[in-house]
Amino acid sequence: MNLKNVSRRKFVGGLAAALGYVSTGPNLDVFAQGQPGPQRRPGPGAPGVGRPSEADYDSFAKLANNENNYGIPDSVMQAMTDHWKYAGRYGYPDPGINQAIAEFDGVKPENVMVTAGSGEVLDVVGTTYCTNGKKVLGVEPSYSQVYQHATTIKSDAIKLPLTKDYRQDIDMILDAAKKHQDEIGFVYVCNPNNPTGQIVTKDEIKQLLDGLPAGMPVLIDEAYHHYVDDPNYATSMPYVNEGRSVIVARTFSKIAAMAAMRIGYAVAPTALVQQMRPYASGSVNVLARYGATATLKNKPMMEEVKRKTIATREKTIKDLRALGYEVIPSQSNFFMVGLRRDVQPVIQAFREEGVLVGRPFPPMTQHLRVSVGVPEDMERFLVAFKKIMSQPTTTARG
Amino acid sequence: MNLKNVSRRKFVGGLAAALGYVSTGPNLDVFAQGQPGPQRRPGPGAPGVGRPSEADYDSFAKLANNENNYGIPDSVMQAMTDHWKYAGRYGYPDPGINQAIAEFDGVKPENVMVTAGSGEVLDVVGTTYCTNGKKVLGVEPSYSQVYQHATTIKSDAIKLPLTKDYRQDIDMILDAAKKHQDEIGFVYVCNPNNPTGQIVTKDEIKQLLDGLPAGMPVLIDEAYHHYVDDPNYATSMPYVNEGRSVIVARTFSKIAAMAAMRIGYAVAPTALVQQMRPYASGSVNVLARYGATATLKNKPMMEEVKRKTIATREKTIKDLRALGYEVIPSQSNFFMVGLRRDVQPVIQAFREEGVLVGRPFPPMTQHLRVSVGVPEDMERFLVAFKKIMSQPTTTARG
Repeated sequence: MNLKNVSRRKFVGGLAAALGYVSTGPNLDVFAQGQPGPQRRPGPGAPGVGRPSEADYDSFAKLANNENNYGIPDSVMQAMTDHWKYAGRYGYPDPGINQAIAEFDGVKPENVMVTAGSGEVLDVVGTTYCTNGKKVLGVEPSYSQVYQHATTIKSDAIKLPLTKDYRQDIDMILDAAKKHQDEIGFVYVCNPNNPTGQIVTKDEIKQLLDGLPAGMPVLIDEAYHHYVDDPNYATSMPYVNEGRSVIVARTFSKIAAMAAMRIGYAVAPTALVQQMRPYASGSVNVLARYGATATLKNKPMMEEVKRKTIATREKTIKDLRALGYEVIPSQSNFFMVGLRRDVQPVIQAFREEGVLVGRPFPPMTQHLRVSVGVPEDMERFLVAFKKIMSQPTTTARG
Repeated sequence: MNLKNVSRRKFVGGLAAALGYVSTGPNLDVFAQGQPGPQRRPGPGAPGVGRPSEADYDSFAKLANNENNYGIPDSVMQAMTDHWKYAGRYGYPDPGINQAIAEFDGVKPENVMVTAGSGEVLDVVGTTYCTNGKKVLGVEPSYSQVYQHATTIKSDAIKLPLTKDYRQDIDMILDAAKKHQDEIGFVYVCNPNNPTGQIVTKDEIKQLLDGLPAGMPVLIDEAYHHYVDDPNYATSMPYVNEGRSVIVARTFSKIAAMAAMRIGYAVAPTALVQQMRPYASGSVNVLARYGATATLKNKPMMEEVKRKTIATREKTIKDLRALGYEVIPSQSNFFMVGLRRDVQPVIQAFREEGVLVGRPFPPMTQHLRVSVGVPEDMERFLVAFKKIMSQPTTTARG
């Protein structure tokens, strides 16, 4: 199947077809990246359905959600546990998180909006800019919470296919943005992209921002920024300082290992911060605030996790390629391996082997997304991979 | 000053006048009830302004924000610290919080929407129902975050005065709801009311719900529910089971002593839950989830805090009355004392004595709201009160 052609045909078929395509997407993200613990948006009457027991969960090798399996470092844990005394308070002293973010990212504190994870940034951008039926424009597969939120607020998404080498096609995004200018509330770029791990280069980001209609907001999701070592990549923070209509999303859920603590942030020009703030909960846990602030002051910890993760990723990719499988090059703490068979039963088979791997990312239904854990996790993954892939899997799906 | 006449005149003067009145309200809630830690909605460029140092803050008697100064009980702390292992995870096992809430409140799990504090419920209700310029209808003073949120999303508030004995005037609310039916997005009732501590009786709630235009949503904020012992009061949870357009807000920030952990919930008919959910962050800290679930299973803890708080409150009120001051009877963990002088300089004087007391609640600018702490807190409060009130305070205001 040529993904690009299939999807392009749908896109070229016009907006209605493109939107029809959106609606065929499965809703499989509920346990995923921005998912803040159980039941982000559960179906009524179904709390906890499909959740493992605590003992089962603890026993799994967790390679499904791009978490940092090294866990929270001691210095950050200390910063959190030192502040239990404020757990019952409202007006507790400011740990200086806005200032710490501003220093870390080279922006001003007033450009920073701290949120309950970067997932909240994605939702808030949607609620702020997808009013009056305006749509989000982005690629597929990408982090689909953005597109799902658009549909829940009665907006919608225009989703473009990736290139043949799984990259975001900036020319195609620009064409679509211009063609559908009046319909678009904002453009979404995940960089590096989840689930492919591919970057948009700094030159491509510049091309995008220079080429988009003036004032069209661009949400650049840098959840995996800290894992990139490709010199062709750069953060988009400097564009905020230039006053461009750019919102950069960051999170402490990935390299900082604080996914369930729920803290992230947006960096944007103050005019955009003011537009978004009414729709942000502003409700961030005190321990998360102290932990995140301590994280920002511990760059060597992040560098160490990055180094170890990249080494483990490259070793695993090498092993998979030696087994004859195509692996998409990655700049993040996950990668995609081509299975040459339907991914859904393979995911289930991994679970039966005690290994949690990524959900399906249609239309890439023959690729498996694997998060990079600690070396022991990857050993369990490889043992299970060899076992599962040496057998035929059923293709029956519920 | 007859508050009722002043405000009624403005209200009778029509919506424009009423809205003009709204706009005169000060924006002093930033460190208050729903304030989730530092900088809920900071002015750009002013992060941390006015925040005390950690040492200063720790030394204060904290009677400003209706917190539970007894703190988190050991069993709840244990439930939280036992689950640090999930701090970096997304898909961790469900502690069963929706089910625990449903059992505690006699509703169904599908009626429950867990949020990052009840402040998030208030904002989400505003975002959901104050669209197309629709307004919130309620009394003043009440918990003003609701009204402030309305203005930030380009909506507005219709605020009615309290009765002479500081109660919510149900007849007046019904009159206004009918007169302005097409303009109103939802009705807000804080029960018991913050800052007065007065309840709306169960008969009055029934009168309100039976009398309102069909389908008009009513947000009943029961943040202080757990402190009420007046037999004329009842929770409004049963109206959710009847399918009325009622949203009940609850929080773990008050009697559960978890303000900075950020967890609360809404209970509403499923149709309303579905309308609100797209605007909720869904982003709740894992430790807060486990702690809240443990709290719901520890009713004796709540009963003990309630009993001790009421005893301390009544003793303090008795002492203030013995000094010749009017105190409004309270059904909550705070009360208002009439100062017969402007409250603002008194608040500052208390701070200089190491005691944090409530912010001003216009138009009740000569009443001080005092949270009920542990007995030692109230002793510090009374010593400071006698000292401050024995001296004239300046009435100069910045």
